[in-house]
Amino acid sequence: MGRWEPNASGRLGRAAMELYLERGFDQTTVADIAERAGLTKRTFFRHYADKRDVLFIGVTPLRERIMKAITQAPADLSPVAVLTLGMQAGAEMIQERPEDVKLRQAIIDAHPELQERELVKLAGLAADMASALRGRGLGEWNARLLAETGVAVFRVAFARWVANSAQGPLTRAVGETMAELAPLIAEG
Amino acid sequence: MGRWEPNASGRLGRAAMELYLERGFDQTTVADIAERAGLTKRTFFRHYADKRDVLFIGVTPLRERIMKAITQAPADLSPVAVLTLGMQAGAEMIQERPEDVKLRQAIIDAHPELQERELVKLAGLAADMASALRGRGLGEWNARLLAETGVAVFRVAFARWVANSAQGPLTRAVGETMAELAPLIAEG
Repeated sequence: MGRWEPNASGRLGRAAMELYLERGFDQTTVADIAERAGLTKRTFFRHYADKRDVLFIGVTPLRERIMKAITQAPADLSPVAVLTLGMQAGAEMIQERPEDVKLRQAIIDAHPELQERELVKLAGLAADMASALRGRGLGEWNARLLAETGVAVFRVAFARWVANSAQGPLTRAVGETMAELAPLIAEG
Repeated sequence: MGRWEPNASGRLGRAAMELYLERGFDQTTVADIAERAGLTKRTFFRHYADKRDVLFIGVTPLRERIMKAITQAPADLSPVAVLTLGMQAGAEMIQERPEDVKLRQAIIDAHPELQERELVKLAGLAADMASALRGRGLGEWNARLLAETGVAVFRVAFARWVANSAQGPLTRAVGETMAELAPLIAEG
């Protein structure tokens, strides 16, 4: 078998998700995934650190899409509008493959060590968004506050969408959840 | 040495924090901590799972204090006022020992695996606060949204206070940060 396989990463990713769905995450080995993809274990480990890693491979392009939307947003938008735009750009990417996303989330929800890894990724996303908001002129602490709040909104919107995606796309859930927060907070 | 030592948990905790400050967290062993406290390693392991565990032992009483303040808050307060009251009750507990808290945070900030554990604890706190807010009649998704936002506010307020506690107590930083969020979000 040759060293470079065309689209090995994508083939391994799809094979892994199929097997996680069929057998369960715990019952699937790296050897199983490689076999299903028609590749070797060595090829698997050229692309992924372990079988958990497959579940987080989408995080980097997602973050890039969000960051691009924030940095390229029109200059006259308010910080919260820019943040919402960024999160909706990420939401668009997620809702393209709803079944994969929901399967992935069900696996993560069932494994505390995967939830930890997801929390770390979300904390990294909050830090990046804060940095992008500072880059647009928002003060240090307001940028952190808005970015951390944005992740809170995104998590809740995502959970709502996973629980009932018949109610509409994730982009809408993000916008609606952000709109619901203002009156909730202003009541104090 | 007898099986039960008076206040062994507290003595070990103080000895650990002293050594983390003097030698650094990585250079301190469980044997060092037990020796400094005048106790045995066996006694240490009766109270703590490992040397990381010492840093998180305060989380349970902190959570209990926050939950008690939320569940006992006057019935006529708005959900955001109840949440702020709960977080300020927690803040009171934290600001009683500012030097310990700051040393602890510096250790956590320097160790990714401790940051993970802290993120997990904060996610658990958000879930508990959401449950307490539901118990006061707030709807499922609004309760989650408000609780997750509360943790975001608390994290930023805490970081501000650690960076500059001369500006006032943590309780005030929590109230001010919550008050700053409303106009930031409403701009959209």
